[in-house]
Amino acid sequence: MKVYGDLKPPERLLLGAGPSNIDPRVLKTLTLPIVEHLDPYFSEVMSETVELLRYAFKTGNKVTFPISGTGSAGMESAICNIVERGDEVVVCISGFFGERMSDMIQRCGGRSIEVRAPLGKAIEKEDVEEALANSNAKAIAIVHAETSTGVLQPLKEISRITHEYGALLIVDAVTSLGGCELNVDEWNIDICYSASQKCLGCPPGLAPITVSERAMSVIRNRRTRVQSWYFDLSTIEKYWIESNRIYHHTAPILLVYALREGLRLLYEEGLENRWMRHKENMQLLVEGIEEIGLTIFTDREHICPAITAINVPKNVNDESVRRTLREEYNITISGGLGELKGKIWRIGLMGVNSSRKNAILVAEALKNALKREKYYENNKKISLI
Amino acid sequence: MKVYGDLKPPERLLLGAGPSNIDPRVLKTLTLPIVEHLDPYFSEVMSETVELLRYAFKTGNKVTFPISGTGSAGMESAICNIVERGDEVVVCISGFFGERMSDMIQRCGGRSIEVRAPLGKAIEKEDVEEALANSNAKAIAIVHAETSTGVLQPLKEISRITHEYGALLIVDAVTSLGGCELNVDEWNIDICYSASQKCLGCPPGLAPITVSERAMSVIRNRRTRVQSWYFDLSTIEKYWIESNRIYHHTAPILLVYALREGLRLLYEEGLENRWMRHKENMQLLVEGIEEIGLTIFTDREHICPAITAINVPKNVNDESVRRTLREEYNITISGGLGELKGKIWRIGLMGVNSSRKNAILVAEALKNALKREKYYENNKKISLI
Repeated sequence: MKVYGDLKPPERLLLGAGPSNIDPRVLKTLTLPIVEHLDPYFSEVMSETVELLRYAFKTGNKVTFPISGTGSAGMESAICNIVERGDEVVVCISGFFGERMSDMIQRCGGRSIEVRAPLGKAIEKEDVEEALANSNAKAIAIVHAETSTGVLQPLKEISRITHEYGALLIVDAVTSLGGCELNVDEWNIDICYSASQKCLGCPPGLAPITVSERAMSVIRNRRTRVQSWYFDLSTIEKYWIESNRIYHHTAPILLVYALREGLRLLYEEGLENRWMRHKENMQLLVEGIEEIGLTIFTDREHICPAITAINVPKNVNDESVRRTLREEYNITISGGLGELKGKIWRIGLMGVNSSRKNAILVAEALKNALKREKYYENNKKISLI
Repeated sequence: MKVYGDLKPPERLLLGAGPSNIDPRVLKTLTLPIVEHLDPYFSEVMSETVELLRYAFKTGNKVTFPISGTGSAGMESAICNIVERGDEVVVCISGFFGERMSDMIQRCGGRSIEVRAPLGKAIEKEDVEEALANSNAKAIAIVHAETSTGVLQPLKEISRITHEYGALLIVDAVTSLGGCELNVDEWNIDICYSASQKCLGCPPGLAPITVSERAMSVIRNRRTRVQSWYFDLSTIEKYWIESNRIYHHTAPILLVYALREGLRLLYEEGLENRWMRHKENMQLLVEGIEEIGLTIFTDREHICPAITAINVPKNVNDESVRRTLREEYNITISGGLGELKGKIWRIGLMGVNSSRKNAILVAEALKNALKREKYYENNKKISLI
């Protein structure tokens, strides 16, 4: 009989695309007594979590709660509630997660009208306008912080155009919520979803979502039922939002405790302070990266405060460098996804991990890993110490 | 500015339909260091979790892993991977969760051929055979332990008939896995899913699933793509099962740590011992319930070892009794769902909670709560002390 040992995970500093490390105060909530999903005590926890989520999203939307799944579950909820067979949706693609949205739209029987930008660049509003003018789009779907390229997409103008054409705006804020400026109401975003394990600094497993009254009315007036039972917002709403909670599914109680605590930390710090902290530490990281002779992959105007994409230099082995970081420094950074595999590194400074200390540490560790690869010896022209 | 206080959940003994209390050893794993979802260490944890899940399901199925969602996410995965538009599926309904399966089948564009049994009774195999004979069913969907009525459904004969007609057998084992006899391979079950928070004694948030090679080949030969991206088993498989894991989504790392530990406890106890423990404690509970003058709702032949449904006596207020149990004894039991609301109580003895002590304690507490309702005074004929 095989013996299974105790879990002894290494103590990693998680500076990749996520998950991020968890604040100790959040971790502590995971060992609190579990109550039932319909317990009056849990009901209070749910209400407070909803209030705090509204604060984080900067919204007054009634329909605001965490979906019981990971970030991609948030994406699927947003899309499958809006898209019916035959619907046209403009989807903006400049990376891995835009492609994923397009895939989901098609699985819902929708027609995906793709607007593309080169990897590392933001989507141009003119291209969006053209797509809206030449289609009968019910919605436009766009990624705010494209985790695969480190682009932070400006949304205000795109939102204005979207609503001029009477479409709904669906925004992926998986990597931006709680770390980058995001104003759901002011920017007129109709559906916005995120994930618990990035700038909110909670364990992975929940996907906060918020839905405008306009979008809810589109959902309530669908010709057909939402194809997914699990992600049907109109029924989850009856469990999460109504005061007389109607059983829908068993919420992941401990993850909700953790989310409330992560949001409470955010609330105590102040949302705008937190945005500023992420921005400043990203800037420090970018300086550090350039000082060690590396270049930023992302268009400079659009570097996301939560994640920085860096070009892997020619003749340097992506995996070998990441292995050195992991095995000698216990630091995790991410490689590229899809066609960017082997071409970029992605460093995330998210939530509790967005600190001056980590910005300096990761650049220094990367320099040492590059030395081991003989990067500087082979590139004499790089004017590094 | 509103102040949000520390979480201070009450210490409840969770003897309802789930979630159950979490074993202290499982709880401890939740505070271990989090690593990335693609970390080599986590990769080992995943492989061991898969092995232990195969042990719990009694299966050699390659495709065996936890879906990143709650039990209903397991249900939706099972259904949406098999059912395509126009497919016929026989669905057995004798409670709330059978209805839910039927709902999901219809949302996938399938035609649901319903076989019903009265609430509290098992489905008759003759009725299943008739439905199979009169349809072109691709699959049959049935709940093993119907959480809403406490019925444990015999499956062997139904499985035999299902395969005679060349259909696939989909089984909901949300409440049975790890607490009631279940032999996925021996009983020829094609898809079986469960949940982490019941007899496995882990936090809610994961839905273990196992899929036979026969079912996978049906899935791989679909005419159309699976309508859900999040639940598409063929792509999740590449992340969970292949040795070269391809990123699909960010697994809920801490919940996976917990699941592995919960399964390790089960493995150390021995699956058959655990089944026996659940059965013995259920029998003790049934005796206790009858001793205090109450009657069992479920057909006696089919009482589920993990959950016992009891009739709420006439003139007794369901909610008031449950409130007394909660507020004075810190014990949670469940009421009825749907049309059984107010008519039954459901007591779960699951995982670490299935003990002689709890069986005795809950019956005694229930007696005291009934005394407060003047149940015995008003029912002199009940020959209770």
